[in-house]
Amino acid sequence: MGGIVKVYGMPMSTATSRVLMTLEEKEASYELVLVNILNGEHKHPDHLARNPFGQIPAFEDGSLMLFESRAVARYVAKKYESGTDLLRSGNLEEAALVDVWLDVEANHFNAPIYAISYQYVIVPRLFGGAPDEKVVEENTAKLEKVLDVYEERLSKSKYLAGDFFSLADLSHFPYIHRLLRTPKATLITSRPHVNAWWEAISSRPAYKKVAAGITFGD
Amino acid sequence: MGGIVKVYGMPMSTATSRVLMTLEEKEASYELVLVNILNGEHKHPDHLARNPFGQIPAFEDGSLMLFESRAVARYVAKKYESGTDLLRSGNLEEAALVDVWLDVEANHFNAPIYAISYQYVIVPRLFGGAPDEKVVEENTAKLEKVLDVYEERLSKSKYLAGDFFSLADLSHFPYIHRLLRTPKATLITSRPHVNAWWEAISSRPAYKKVAAGITFGD
Repeated sequence: MGGIVKVYGMPMSTATSRVLMTLEEKEASYELVLVNILNGEHKHPDHLARNPFGQIPAFEDGSLMLFESRAVARYVAKKYESGTDLLRSGNLEEAALVDVWLDVEANHFNAPIYAISYQYVIVPRLFGGAPDEKVVEENTAKLEKVLDVYEERLSKSKYLAGDFFSLADLSHFPYIHRLLRTPKATLITSRPHVNAWWEAISSRPAYKKVAAGITFGD
Repeated sequence: MGGIVKVYGMPMSTATSRVLMTLEEKEASYELVLVNILNGEHKHPDHLARNPFGQIPAFEDGSLMLFESRAVARYVAKKYESGTDLLRSGNLEEAALVDVWLDVEANHFNAPIYAISYQYVIVPRLFGGAPDEKVVEENTAKLEKVLDVYEERLSKSKYLAGDFFSLADLSHFPYIHRLLRTPKATLITSRPHVNAWWEAISSRPAYKKVAAGITFGD
């Protein structure tokens, strides 16, 4: 593929920031093209041609157009040999465990942490409303169960897929970053191994660079 | 890895059948070890040691234990060189498109088709209840939108990721198989390209073999 790759999205978007941190871990050059969802730009025909579901981010590499942030992150992780080995493709077992914990993030972790963050961050800031405490508490109970599994897992290995940082860990950063700016931060900080894992993730230069651009949740 | 691989689950489970069809496409030998969720066996300590979330399937290959059906399917697709090339790993662009549509299945398609199937199949058969029509209609509206995107996509390529059958297509089979046995079958059959795509998937020997073992939704 020729030319610089483009990410269509915005830094405050959790899915966009997942792709940006992956690009930073791979030491890749990229251009961020602003698609402002606050103006509804993600539903314009230009963007629907990039992603038929009208979401951000979309990702362009020459004639290749991709969407779904985890799929884009996998592509970036494979395309660039530089930087961190995020998928462990050279080791079938390690790669499988990265895939397992990537799917755990997508299928168990994402829904409740999204719901809590939405109530505390999106509802007040975008709609001027108050968090729905029933929704918060229901999803807190769900997230507690998921994080209890993480606490046990992370008592046995430093990172989710083993003693190596991978895309499975990276993929969790956008919503943990946001949750830590809500009254439910203790879901993370009260669990010693989960908290140590987050300290390791958030000490990475790629995290610091991308997090510095996320002003929305602060 | 030595010895025969084991799938812990049951054929009526959609997630189990996703793994079984992947094994069949790869012409792999395997043993299906029954974990009967109707008896709560998925919450027993033996199974929680295989999958800390207490779901089926789990997958054992020697000392390696995996869960999350899509992650297991990826592992199976990579491990066996025989059979169908399900991930297109030799072509970075094709592999990326497989990943995109695998994530579309998991993140857009799965939730509404699960909800509809649950109301029509699980509620009456397991709980002796009647489908909640409000839930059915809400999720039918969501699934319509997703399938409209599929119809457009499948008007341009025979399969989701291109003109080749991949894990992205396979991953849709369990819930389409089930939906076709409900009053909402027309969601599939009324869309010409979606219907032709399903005809192609369901004509595969691997589908026929696995589907023959699924008696629950019939």
